[in-house]
Amino acid sequence: MDRSLIPLSYLQPTETQIRGQVTNTFLSKQLVAAGICLTDEHLLQGCFPNAEFPVIPGHEGAGIVESIGEGVTSVKPGEKVIPLCHPQCGECSFCLNPESNYCLKSHFTEPQNLLPDKTTRFTCKGKQIHHFLWVSTFAEYTVVPEYAVAKIDPAAPLDKVCLLGCGFSTGYGAAINTAKVKPGSTCAIFGLGGVGLSVVMGCKAAGASRIIAVDINKDKFAKAKQLGATDCINPRDCQKPIQEVLTEMTGQGVDYSFEAIGLKETMIAALASCNMNTGICVMIGELDAGSEISLDPMLLLTGRAWKGILVGGWKTRDCMPKLVSSYLEKKFNSDLLITHTLPFAKVNEGFELLRAGKSIRSVLLF
Amino acid sequence: MDRSLIPLSYLQPTETQIRGQVTNTFLSKQLVAAGICLTDEHLLQGCFPNAEFPVIPGHEGAGIVESIGEGVTSVKPGEKVIPLCHPQCGECSFCLNPESNYCLKSHFTEPQNLLPDKTTRFTCKGKQIHHFLWVSTFAEYTVVPEYAVAKIDPAAPLDKVCLLGCGFSTGYGAAINTAKVKPGSTCAIFGLGGVGLSVVMGCKAAGASRIIAVDINKDKFAKAKQLGATDCINPRDCQKPIQEVLTEMTGQGVDYSFEAIGLKETMIAALASCNMNTGICVMIGELDAGSEISLDPMLLLTGRAWKGILVGGWKTRDCMPKLVSSYLEKKFNSDLLITHTLPFAKVNEGFELLRAGKSIRSVLLF
Repeated sequence: MDRSLIPLSYLQPTETQIRGQVTNTFLSKQLVAAGICLTDEHLLQGCFPNAEFPVIPGHEGAGIVESIGEGVTSVKPGEKVIPLCHPQCGECSFCLNPESNYCLKSHFTEPQNLLPDKTTRFTCKGKQIHHFLWVSTFAEYTVVPEYAVAKIDPAAPLDKVCLLGCGFSTGYGAAINTAKVKPGSTCAIFGLGGVGLSVVMGCKAAGASRIIAVDINKDKFAKAKQLGATDCINPRDCQKPIQEVLTEMTGQGVDYSFEAIGLKETMIAALASCNMNTGICVMIGELDAGSEISLDPMLLLTGRAWKGILVGGWKTRDCMPKLVSSYLEKKFNSDLLITHTLPFAKVNEGFELLRAGKSIRSVLLF
Repeated sequence: MDRSLIPLSYLQPTETQIRGQVTNTFLSKQLVAAGICLTDEHLLQGCFPNAEFPVIPGHEGAGIVESIGEGVTSVKPGEKVIPLCHPQCGECSFCLNPESNYCLKSHFTEPQNLLPDKTTRFTCKGKQIHHFLWVSTFAEYTVVPEYAVAKIDPAAPLDKVCLLGCGFSTGYGAAINTAKVKPGSTCAIFGLGGVGLSVVMGCKAAGASRIIAVDINKDKFAKAKQLGATDCINPRDCQKPIQEVLTEMTGQGVDYSFEAIGLKETMIAALASCNMNTGICVMIGELDAGSEISLDPMLLLTGRAWKGILVGGWKTRDCMPKLVSSYLEKKFNSDLLITHTLPFAKVNEGFELLRAGKSIRSVLLF
């Protein structure tokens, strides 16, 4: 294992009672489970914007509060929580806007490589290790700001609901919150990883009548159909560009398209696959930092709308507890996304499975 | 005058009682007034997609029905009408969708260089002349399909409401229908031609609290302020890129931005000027056919939405009569956009004024 990329188990929360320099204070939590997401792979490849190395990756997980700082009021030691890779400070102008889930404390406005008080709480052999999106879930213990953690139902199985911290919520919310998929509509999903399959589940839950799953890995198709896809297409089996195939299949193009890969070609294909009347394309996948995509603006002028979203548009602190409750009420079954459960020592095996397209979601247990 | 580009006065409706090969039949109308729009200039420069030459330009006008084909029921000879450069057949799947104004009979799905029965009704010295968007308003008489014309209030002054056929409705509707500008919001408008100034009017009507007008021609600023702009900025006077200036002026970027020019740089600047939380950028200007624009997808992933629109999202046959009624009720004053009224023989002078940035809207009278 390359410890320069994934420091493992040599860390302890260094301060658990320190009041930070920001309004909110920090708390320490013990991670119980963490999911491996393509965004972690982006980070490891050096493609995540503004990340700093060495770093502890991981941004999807669930755990138990170990201790809290003085000012922390929303959680107590022993309570189950999900760390929030996309925070909700609740005070900034973005958080106060009910229509979106962006927060001015997220890494788009300031890096989350150090905690808000500009310290790191991780060290390795005397050297400081950076946090990732403040949460760094590939660690037995981590320290996070209070506004980057949500208390959840004590009945929640942490090895399952850890997926709600990013992958499931991101895809499911893209369909429910961002596209606002309507009953009877047609949808196309590019990329059938954990996020793309969660989009399939969201489209199904929203009552879409046709859900077309697109991937070049046909091994993903059985799972996609199990989760609600009505059609599965491998673009490599098509004689025409996939956008033309989808347009012909649906008359004028789908009502909603989703890109859950992070490739230039599929971003444009997804945009061109939705209809020129009221088609909405939701961009979920991330390109490498600094990349550009080129498009014919007529794709937009003809009426399409193109939107991006993070963590499915959920206001994370408000919504994570509700999503966990919905999970417990069996309103969705995100367990079906978990293909592998591995001890944390096999973290790199989990990445290999992801790169080889052999896993949907691997959950690491501490 | 270059008659190869703008044939003038040598045409007559060749058939006024012929039933076409499509369901709707044609009617002939006498044009009384026509506005000169930048889209006509695009056409003349050879930049309008799928246009064919020789052609009679003009797509904004108002006139009186001269005769009707057998099946025409919605208008009668002598009635005042506005020709619709963006038709509403009322029967296609797009028209039946209440949420948008696209129509499968528009030139995005099939060229409108010939009438739907594949004939032209214009000839010059024995040579066939193409229609433009079916309406070709730079002519004393034109022949249009019934679904490309809307009957309007007989009290309407044709030399004024001709602007509602494209420019005014396009800009005003982009604010009202497409962006759905909310009271108290902030807006930025790039380009202060007839369309951009109509966006200013739409933002004002919608109750925006800050309306920032952007143009490199400061001669447009007085009119922009008269119509509702609270701030006017010339990017050439700024030390920083305009998107940074607007972001600083508004804290996090405007709520709504509009591009009403048709330049790559301003399309990206407009997108980057709206805030990453719930910002909506509406693209109205058209690039030359086949052009591409390049963008950093993070502009979208951070939550912005990018939308394109035509004719302001109005379902043209349904809405044009209502817009005319609103004009008569003085709910808006589109007359303020008319800077020049010229006899039709001075059509090229009108184009020169447009190119020199000396006119907002020139109206041609027949």
